[in-house]
Amino acid sequence: MRTVNIELINTGTELLLGRVLNTHQQWLGAELANLGFPVTRQVTIPDSGPAMETALRDALGRADLVITTGGLGPTSDDITRELIAQLLGIQLKLDRDILAQIEKFFAIRNRAVPSNAFKQAMIPEGAIVLLNTNGTAPGLALSIPGSALTVKKWLIMLPGPPRELQPMFTEQVIPILRREFGTPTFVCRTFKTTGLGEAFIEQRIAPHLERLVNAGIELGYCAKVGQVEVRLSARNADTARFMSEAEAIVHQQLGTYIFASNEVSLEEVVVSRLAGKHQTLALAESCTGGLISNRITNVPGASAIFIAGLITYSNEAKQMLLGVRTETLERHGAVSEQTAREMAEGARTRHKTDYAIAVTGIAGPTGGTTDKPVGTVFIGLAMPGNTIIEKNFNPYDRETFKYLTSQQALDLLRKNLGS
Amino acid sequence: MRTVNIELINTGTELLLGRVLNTHQQWLGAELANLGFPVTRQVTIPDSGPAMETALRDALGRADLVITTGGLGPTSDDITRELIAQLLGIQLKLDRDILAQIEKFFAIRNRAVPSNAFKQAMIPEGAIVLLNTNGTAPGLALSIPGSALTVKKWLIMLPGPPRELQPMFTEQVIPILRREFGTPTFVCRTFKTTGLGEAFIEQRIAPHLERLVNAGIELGYCAKVGQVEVRLSARNADTARFMSEAEAIVHQQLGTYIFASNEVSLEEVVVSRLAGKHQTLALAESCTGGLISNRITNVPGASAIFIAGLITYSNEAKQMLLGVRTETLERHGAVSEQTAREMAEGARTRHKTDYAIAVTGIAGPTGGTTDKPVGTVFIGLAMPGNTIIEKNFNPYDRETFKYLTSQQALDLLRKNLGS
Repeated sequence: MRTVNIELINTGTELLLGRVLNTHQQWLGAELANLGFPVTRQVTIPDSGPAMETALRDALGRADLVITTGGLGPTSDDITRELIAQLLGIQLKLDRDILAQIEKFFAIRNRAVPSNAFKQAMIPEGAIVLLNTNGTAPGLALSIPGSALTVKKWLIMLPGPPRELQPMFTEQVIPILRREFGTPTFVCRTFKTTGLGEAFIEQRIAPHLERLVNAGIELGYCAKVGQVEVRLSARNADTARFMSEAEAIVHQQLGTYIFASNEVSLEEVVVSRLAGKHQTLALAESCTGGLISNRITNVPGASAIFIAGLITYSNEAKQMLLGVRTETLERHGAVSEQTAREMAEGARTRHKTDYAIAVTGIAGPTGGTTDKPVGTVFIGLAMPGNTIIEKNFNPYDRETFKYLTSQQALDLLRKNLGS
Repeated sequence: MRTVNIELINTGTELLLGRVLNTHQQWLGAELANLGFPVTRQVTIPDSGPAMETALRDALGRADLVITTGGLGPTSDDITRELIAQLLGIQLKLDRDILAQIEKFFAIRNRAVPSNAFKQAMIPEGAIVLLNTNGTAPGLALSIPGSALTVKKWLIMLPGPPRELQPMFTEQVIPILRREFGTPTFVCRTFKTTGLGEAFIEQRIAPHLERLVNAGIELGYCAKVGQVEVRLSARNADTARFMSEAEAIVHQQLGTYIFASNEVSLEEVVVSRLAGKHQTLALAESCTGGLISNRITNVPGASAIFIAGLITYSNEAKQMLLGVRTETLERHGAVSEQTAREMAEGARTRHKTDYAIAVTGIAGPTGGTTDKPVGTVFIGLAMPGNTIIEKNFNPYDRETFKYLTSQQALDLLRKNLGS
């Protein structure tokens, strides 16, 4: 089966001015990849005729399928429908069914139909109308016949608001894609790792994967804070045969650095393992200031395993809530192995949990010393029969420091939970 | 002054597959708009040579300034540097200063330099090196001389990770843009509000601003979770004269709904006001699970005002850490006005702070009842001489619920702190 070339055109001046985050790119990109149709190119253009015309001509010159978002609404900067009709030499005509639906939309809201709404019922001749169950602007799907020199192409126009676009895509566009382009082979596996930098990850796996990459397996990396994702993909059945071999190599080379091989987060892994064992967790956070607790409680069902979080920014709170001894604070300081140990053990004992994590460090920008510069952090893990302490150095800005430390703390717990 | 044509090329297969949200587009778009250089076009391409070459040729054919993101790292899919050198016929040569920095980066982390890291020290001849203070890959700025037919252009290459790209842009790219393209008149004011929806905000201000909008003032809205931003802008000196009048109208109509008229966050407003008064805060969080503490501790200097955070997910923790009475929990439940009151007062009394915030609610997806459906939340604020309780209904997904609730809690505190 041939590869389908898909381009995405997002229209909207607000996207280019950074007033709105372009979530369509991610949502449609992920949906299409899951269907086996990875997007080959995405462009954002302002709500302007010439920009739209250039982008459409370019995209239709290259792609089998062009999807546009936005510009179908009622206001004066919504120009997609008119421009496309003009560019392709197609007449717009009034669709009485759409008109009736627009009238109904306003009627059930007890509002008069604004005069600019009627233009949404103007449909390019021959277009398939995609009904909008959450708004007034219908989407449109247009097949552009091939000629002696060109193949048939599809142009699909979707409305801008995500809650209108998303159900329209799922319910009405996917069946068109399946019918027109079949069910292609596109296998993609993501391995989420933590504890090793991107360059080290590549050193470990790339030499072993070279043969499979030459056979067509694609290998990609994505570095985030405290996390590197390795992506293997195969775009056809021939290549897909090598996928399980490639996966086995990644597992073998990266072993326990891999915490998930899908869309699961590190906090979900930890919560799920604790829940599976009916075990519980307490958290004692100083420099991470609640971030670890926040991540744990983002997981639905966390209440089954998470008993209490103590955010002890001050020495007084460390003493009162965790029982850290005055002598320890005076002799070793709040940022020390000893304090991390007493914090973890105090949280575990007082809240009668199976595990407790403690973090104490210097997030900065101030507070560093020669011995303990900004970025120094001690992570304690108290568990049945043992407490372990890890010392790390994360010399980054405050929020990166916090996130990286939270990642290290959750991973220390994960590695000690077993599977 | 002529308009500067700016195009943005985001590289990364992970962006097209929807694995990563393209936040560069928003961040750079907003930064450049604030500088007076709105982006005219943005494109995302995979990590592939032919796609990069086409995109670069197209962009350099149209724009005065092309900014690329990504593809500068150490791994084999990082190809931007090599491709651009090849496309422009420039040699790459080893930069010994960069090499020394890369070696230092790994040395202070007690790690050997991976061999693939060295390629990041290969610099196109004539390029300005943009130092990376948060990673190993330097950015590059290249001026492409004009010819008889073309004007001089700039090509700026930035690394993919946001925490590397953002300071590099702010500290090193902006001075180049100012020097090369001047300082266009572009006055922009953002008002951050919370507590009113976008449609209501527009209803309050738009009629009063109509005359100034007709005179050229641009008015924009951006709705986020628990926050609507109003943006006024003027693109030339003639229009900029009306700016202060427009600002006065926004202030008059929105009053205390505005919590900041610049890039300051709600947590920064709260921390700064408490610090200015030498007052202190404790937090008792149930359903927000540490998010409010996390936001407060993202503010440098928070340790001066933030004494302790108690994340009391379980009833036992609410009793043990905050002194909530068994009778209260049995009679009214954990999610109730009475529990919120005892949580806030308990946190304030035990930690001897001036203020304490407590939140208890049902984040979902499970746990709702007919009386108290998912989304129900009580926010308590204990302060000198008084405790107030606010009941809200935030029926959204778990993370939106948490963020919106944290916004409401911080705003309740802000409104009771005075200025």
